[in-house]
Amino acid sequence: MNFPSNLVKNAVEQLSSLPGIGRKSALRLVLHMLKKDKLAVEKFGDSFIQLINRINYCTRCYSISETELCEVCGNPKRDKQTICVVEDIRVMMAIENTMQYKGVYHILGGLISPMDGIGPTDIRVEELINKIENENVREVIFALSTTMEGDTTNYYLFRRLKDSGIKISSIARGIAIGDELEYTDEITLGTAISSRMPYSE
Amino acid sequence: MNFPSNLVKNAVEQLSSLPGIGRKSALRLVLHMLKKDKLAVEKFGDSFIQLINRINYCTRCYSISETELCEVCGNPKRDKQTICVVEDIRVMMAIENTMQYKGVYHILGGLISPMDGIGPTDIRVEELINKIENENVREVIFALSTTMEGDTTNYYLFRRLKDSGIKISSIARGIAIGDELEYTDEITLGTAISSRMPYSE
Repeated sequence: MNFPSNLVKNAVEQLSSLPGIGRKSALRLVLHMLKKDKLAVEKFGDSFIQLINRINYCTRCYSISETELCEVCGNPKRDKQTICVVEDIRVMMAIENTMQYKGVYHILGGLISPMDGIGPTDIRVEELINKIENENVREVIFALSTTMEGDTTNYYLFRRLKDSGIKISSIARGIAIGDELEYTDEITLGTAISSRMPYSE
Repeated sequence: MNFPSNLVKNAVEQLSSLPGIGRKSALRLVLHMLKKDKLAVEKFGDSFIQLINRINYCTRCYSISETELCEVCGNPKRDKQTICVVEDIRVMMAIENTMQYKGVYHILGGLISPMDGIGPTDIRVEELINKIENENVREVIFALSTTMEGDTTNYYLFRRLKDSGIKISSIARGIAIGDELEYTDEITLGTAISSRMPYSE
């Protein structure tokens, strides 16, 4: 692409460096911005500068927080003996929205992915082990995606934790609520049958 | 969505204000940025602040330009008597890439769209009329999208220009190069037959 101005080229390159945004979409977005007023675009740019300079992480669970402890870790009503291990803050937010979980979290900050060169030392595994060794933890719940990377991470963590004596569980895998059985894929259906649960009213 | 930090909330809101980016994608992009180094994210934000503060437009065709006249308008080899009317700079860039056009451009900055409340006064129609009245223009070529808005704008401009005595043309509509006729939609095929061209080797 031949850009008429380096300013446009630069903004397009920055936007298209984000995952899922190509150069054509980026140019469309930049032209959209040029139609907005100056203050709005300055606010746009400034929000990212503020973000990266002022962001803080919870010292306990590593989620994003404006205080030393996040809202969950700082809440005396939450069960600190139960730790739910998640990939990132998006999963934590999704679980919080269900209002079904009363324990705390541990944000790994990624999943083990040999294909992408991400090993156990690149995510917060040691921090989890330390927490389990030094604090009174009763149960660890794995809430990782059912992907190759999620399963690899599950297995690695299980191997590291299995002799610690604490309870290890994983979120249930099965038929999603509302799904029709004839359209469910075979692997999910097979897992749902072999992991059948006692019927409860 | 309950955000753990206002900084994140703000960045997500800014990104999701762009067309085609929802709040979930925006959050994914913001978390992606938080994994990058500080300088890279500052550069990202700054590129938009620089863009909006330093952007310049060609005083003749209204395309984006770092100089008073853009590269096309400032080029003595380009035919200033032929003006190609386009919606925005993206179309101009696409036509420039074909290297088939030697005239100059007029960027409307939008299309007439009563549904969105965009009338002829919201785009650069008067600037085009002025140019035609005061300069030695021989031909105007409409290169607008084949959408409701494009056709409305084509028709409006034609009505305004038809008594000016200059040649008015529109880019050819027909079968795209490489298209198979049996899969071409009926309207395009019908247009292609009624606007058939003399055969040339």
